Amino acid sequence: MMNLPYGELSIGQKKCSHGRTITETDVVNFCGLTGNWLEIHSNAEFSKSSMYGQRVVQGGLVFVIGNAMFGFDSAVVEAFYGVDKLRFLKPTFINDTIHAESEIIAKRDKGDKHGIVTAQLWVVNQRNEKVLSCEFTLLIRRERLIVERNPE
Amino acid sequence: MMNLPYGELSIGQKKCSHGRTITETDVVNFCGLTGNWLEIHSNAEFSKSSMYGQRVVQGGLVFVIGNAMFGFDSAVVEAFYGVDKLRFLKPTFINDTIHAESEIIAKRDKGDKHGIVTAQLWVVNQRNEKVLSCEFTLLIRRERLIVERNPE
Amino acid sequence: MMNLPYGELSIGQKKCSHGRTITETDVVNFCGLTGNWLEIHSNAEFSKSSMYGQRVVQGGLVFVIGNAMFGFDSAVVEAFYGVDKLRFLKPTFINDTIHAESEIIAKRDKGDKHGIVTAQLWVVNQRNEKVLSCEFTLLIRRERLIVERNPE
Amino acid sequence: MMNLPYGELSIGQKKCSHGRTITETDVVNFCGLTGNWLEIHSNAEFSKSSMYGQRVVQGGLVFVIGNAMFGFDSAVVEAFYGVDKLRFLKPTFINDTIHAESEIIAKRDKGDKHGIVTAQLWVVNQRNEKVLSCEFTLLIRRERLIVERNPE
Amino acid sequence: MMNLPYGELSIGQKKCSHGRTITETDVVNFCGLTGNWLEIHSNAEFSKSSMYGQRVVQGGLVFVIGNAMFGFDSAVVEAFYGVDKLRFLKPTFINDTIHAESEIIAKRDKGDKHGIVTAQLWVVNQRNEKVLSCEFTLLIRRERLIVERNPE
Amino acid sequence: MMNLPYGELSIGQKKCSHGRTITETDVVNFCGLTGNWLEIHSNAEFSKSSMYGQRVVQGGLVFVIGNAMFGFDSAVVEAFYGVDKLRFLKPTFINDTIHAESEIIAKRDKGDKHGIVTAQLWVVNQRNEKVLSCEFTLLIRRERLIVERNPE
Repeated sequence: MMNLPYGELSIGQKKCSHGRTITETDVVNFCGLTGNWLEIHSNAEFSKSSMYGQRVVQGGLVFVIGNAMFGFDSAVVEAFYGVDKLRFLKPTFINDTIHAESEIIAKRDKGDKHGIVTAQLWVVNQRNEKVLSCEFTLLIRRERLIVERNPE
Repeated sequence: MMNLPYGELSIGQKKCSHGRTITETDVVNFCGLTGNWLEIHSNAEFSKSSMYGQRVVQGGLVFVIGNAMFGFDSAVVEAFYGVDKLRFLKPTFINDTIHAESEIIAKRDKGDKHGIVTAQLWVVNQRNEKVLSCEFTLLIRRERLIVERNPE
Repeated sequence: MMNLPYGELSIGQKKCSHGRTITETDVVNFCGLTGNWLEIHSNAEFSKSSMYGQRVVQGGLVFVIGNAMFGFDSAVVEAFYGVDKLRFLKPTFINDTIHAESEIIAKRDKGDKHGIVTAQLWVVNQRNEKVLSCEFTLLIRRERLIVERNPE
Repeated sequence: MMNLPYGELSIGQKKCSHGRTITETDVVNFCGLTGNWLEIHSNAEFSKSSMYGQRVVQGGLVFVIGNAMFGFDSAVVEAFYGVDKLRFLKPTFINDTIHAESEIIAKRDKGDKHGIVTAQLWVVNQRNEKVLSCEFTLLIRRERLIVERNPE
Repeated sequence: MMNLPYGELSIGQKKCSHGRTITETDVVNFCGLTGNWLEIHSNAEFSKSSMYGQRVVQGGLVFVIGNAMFGFDSAVVEAFYGVDKLRFLKPTFINDTIHAESEIIAKRDKGDKHGIVTAQLWVVNQRNEKVLSCEFTLLIRRERLIVERNPE
Repeated sequence: MMNLPYGELSIGQKKCSHGRTITETDVVNFCGLTGNWLEIHSNAEFSKSSMYGQRVVQGGLVFVIGNAMFGFDSAVVEAFYGVDKLRFLKPTFINDTIHAESEIIAKRDKGDKHGIVTAQLWVVNQRNEKVLSCEFTLLIRRERLIVERNPE
């Protein structure tokens, strides 16, 4: 979503990303990357007797994939300020397919080169259930950064 | 930190985790896992001319590793409610070493089996700079869950 | 590049991708994924005495990353027909930064729903040297495929 | 196959590799490595309604694994010149098992230390269907390179 | 288990770890990491006709995960001396869940700062079958190493 | 080494493998795979003040890579019995290059289809230092297993 310069963004703009199936591979690789092997994510036997009856995808994984699906463009995003009201609304299970939906909810000028933009982000599954909700705040350039790459 | 049942947790308790060096491997593997190859994280040439002069570790990676360092125990953590006021205070660079520090800042009863606990989490680097700050809220059991595993 | 329906593509159109630094991590992970540990890619001692004086990035890795940088959109690309004249023009070394450049060089109708498009692809490094060249042929839809995702 | 010096290779020589099952893990890790998350490879819901009815293994993944199965020996292979007529003949699906078959189809001298050898390579699945075909050209040494490693 | 200083360890102490499901992802990633693609681990077709009727998890993978589950603490473990009598008692299959059980079987002083401790380690599956057995010998500190990390 | 049927193996046969540089990527990926983030392997700051002055490659990683370099052939290796006298003789550091050397030290018949073979395995670095030593015992077929794969 954040591939437009500050002046072209306006409150109420919405966008919907492509989708991705969250596989057992993603869950195991995320345990490996973070070092968190909490059994609800990594132990199928333990998880059978949990309230979910199966392993649950890590909330942190849903967040970082949803964040990536949101879509950033280096030419306009200057900095990532923070996240508020991150909520895990429903569990995501292995083989669920998620996509991101977003809407710009606030913007304000910051000097003459940038603006600050806040977007609501939801991660939504194949049953059209919102599984994650949060607000993102970014520093956005007024002018697209031009990177010279010498095309032929 | 969250390896005690609800009754043994009290406001003001602090904990400090082990540390981990964030390597180029972590940064590349995280690009791969999330699918976000924003050039400030993945393009060394582009990053040389950025305000940081080098590639920056993804805020999301610092967050999920800090989260894992925080320490959860399946026997007491029943659910992960959400995160508030997540702020990226300073950049983390490749080869920085981070650890997590936490402090319990709120707790309240929830029925007779659980309580809700909020902790402040900071991720701190080898220069003793806070690079990330957020508040975590978890559902904690009053009684440790006993998992039978037939030790000899 | 291939994010336009067949009718909007024309011979001579050019595009230039973002860039990515090829790290030691990429080289090691690619050895792992393919199972090919040829020493010129994986043994720094052996490679010191080779004609290159150092490890060389796998040609196959440059090809598949260049291919990904080329940019495909599921809504218009129906099938991947093949590749011709794939040539490794210069070695890529660990820490080189590459991007893709492309130009449409042929197109022909295929039935009333598709067309076949051939593009020249180059992978170019930070010294503006072409390191790989090939021709790609794709089956492209005349109408963009609409995927419903229930945005709010 | 390419583990013999130039003089011992002759047109018509054939070889058949071991096999490997292409798993969901390979497909997800390859999306991660390349950064290409085209939905026909990564979104199970999207793929159900495609002409294949399921996710398809990336052609590039079949190519690089087939290439690795082909078998190279650092002691005789000096350089990888290129690939021609790469064709994706049939789709490969998750859990298909593939192996490589090859046949030398051309050779010519190059100076007094090397020769150039072209081999036809096919990747074949467990139903004995050819799924990929291409021609490889390599620079091969006349004398095996001896690497001293001080065996006891 | 090895998170106590030498003086607090005594022969006969037992411990039981958390569990982890060994997934296809772990098996494929371990093939990649080691470079060993022996078909009994990586080729589902080949493995169907083996004495096990399916792919078998690598003994080395069960060993290194069992070793990690055993639990080490940098503050007390100074060095890893070796392993004896490593035996693979039963096969582990994809989707089995394993945990580690250990018992201290020998200890002896080494200077005034350390002791040497030997523990029996078993890896046990969800059917309560011992699948791996070995003896570990470690150099353990008499005083816990204090690492300063400046908690607030 | 273990690519010959039982009858062709004899006590005193030696073999030397190719080499591989152990990278930071291998060390980080192995922490991830095993879940063991002991700071001597993963925290560069902590390791500076250790007796080694730097991070040390995991003994388990040296073992499983040395094991893979040893070389197994599915056509003759029927089972992996165990490992004895595994000793970590010297530390391996990031960017060391290792290879495996082996010698058959015992063999005995087992029924009319197999024999049991024990080999001494050493892992040796680029300074020709033995860093790991162990004994491997394998069940080897008397007749090579023929796998039909329908070569053209």
